[in-house]
Amino acid sequence: MKLDVLFSPIQADELFFTGKTTIVIDVLRASSTIITALANGAKEVVPVGTIEFAVKVSGGIFGGQTLLGGERNTKKIEGFALGNSPTEYSKEIVSGKSIVFYSTNGSRAIVKAKYSANLFVCSFNNLNAVAKHLKQLNEDVIILCSGNNNFFSLEDSVCAGMLINELVNVDKNFTLTDSSKSALTLFKSYGKNILKLLSESDHGELLITNGFESDLKDCAELNSTEVIPHYSANVLKVLK
Amino acid sequence: MKLDVLFSPIQADELFFTGKTTIVIDVLRASSTIITALANGAKEVVPVGTIEFAVKVSGGIFGGQTLLGGERNTKKIEGFALGNSPTEYSKEIVSGKSIVFYSTNGSRAIVKAKYSANLFVCSFNNLNAVAKHLKQLNEDVIILCSGNNNFFSLEDSVCAGMLINELVNVDKNFTLTDSSKSALTLFKSYGKNILKLLSESDHGELLITNGFESDLKDCAELNSTEVIPHYSANVLKVLK
Repeated sequence: MKLDVLFSPIQADELFFTGKTTIVIDVLRASSTIITALANGAKEVVPVGTIEFAVKVSGGIFGGQTLLGGERNTKKIEGFALGNSPTEYSKEIVSGKSIVFYSTNGSRAIVKAKYSANLFVCSFNNLNAVAKHLKQLNEDVIILCSGNNNFFSLEDSVCAGMLINELVNVDKNFTLTDSSKSALTLFKSYGKNILKLLSESDHGELLITNGFESDLKDCAELNSTEVIPHYSANVLKVLK
Repeated sequence: MKLDVLFSPIQADELFFTGKTTIVIDVLRASSTIITALANGAKEVVPVGTIEFAVKVSGGIFGGQTLLGGERNTKKIEGFALGNSPTEYSKEIVSGKSIVFYSTNGSRAIVKAKYSANLFVCSFNNLNAVAKHLKQLNEDVIILCSGNNNFFSLEDSVCAGMLINELVNVDKNFTLTDSSKSALTLFKSYGKNILKLLSESDHGELLITNGFESDLKDCAELNSTEVIPHYSANVLKVLK
């Protein structure tokens, strides 16, 4: 089994992912938020690549069963019901709903990887569950870090490294690339205190400045759920 | 002083570099080869972004004072006098010559960063000299790792981390980003044995397979020269 990491979605085009098993990580905050929404009973999350498309998609669905969620540069988008804080996606609000979701990095990374044969969303919240599932699948894996406006994100890379660490600890028969070796090294260096890592990361600092400090605590929670968002037919649902 | 690292040229467009101080690193092998050529008396190296342009540029220069050099996917290009092994660029061959140079990653990274206010080429060979010059300049620095076909290269990142380590050891008044922190961490983990690092990197393994093992030893030589290639008016010359 080969484990590879992309530190930014810009490093590959859509066709690169064709037929692959891809794990999308956007710790701050899209993957944490999507996992929370599905764990709290949302029917599905529809990740979209543009705000315009989010509005268009949501307009075609009747009966008040759809919510628009997400952010642009950390802030809630005008006209959207929800931002990108996991805590907004509570049972009362999301249960049974379809959520059309846009975010600067995470939702676009998921859409970019749409041709994957297997596409899952991971954060610290569901890391063990994802690792367990990948062990069963036993396929080569691409871990796609959503990054930060095409740049490198420490928190996504450390999360990728933690996932790799879970996998290589069980089965020594893995091939690592330059990037997966590096992610593993970064996990070993920064993974002991996840909340501290998030607080000191570039994006974490921006979130704190913009008033989202409490989100960091939610995003740092390790293995709080077994829910794995699985992308199929353009939507993310809980993997059964 | 802010130190930032790009792990791949694809992460930014040409205008990103406007007015910046940029260090381009392609340890295996373009930056090592360019440094060797200038250290051995080449008049200048003209990095180009395409093979077609290399041929066109060299055709316009008379008198046998021009050499075409470089590689595509590690191999010498048909019709080119020189490949991308530092050892080919000996005094006898390059002294006094203009070298038009194309390589899959390194020359294209240099061309991409052409709008920088200060643009220098670094490898393990001239690392101390570059660090010393940057300390004098005292500007924010972008370290551009050439990577490997848009992907991440461990050897470029460790070299970036070593350069950062030299800089932060002298002056504690540096700002590090997610990527420069990570490069520094990778240097601390992999920088003790550079030849081993190169031999075990993805690109190093490919070079060994293709018969270029001895190049790795040349590229691993730490601080063998004080020569700093400086880009100005489309050519690289020794910084005076």
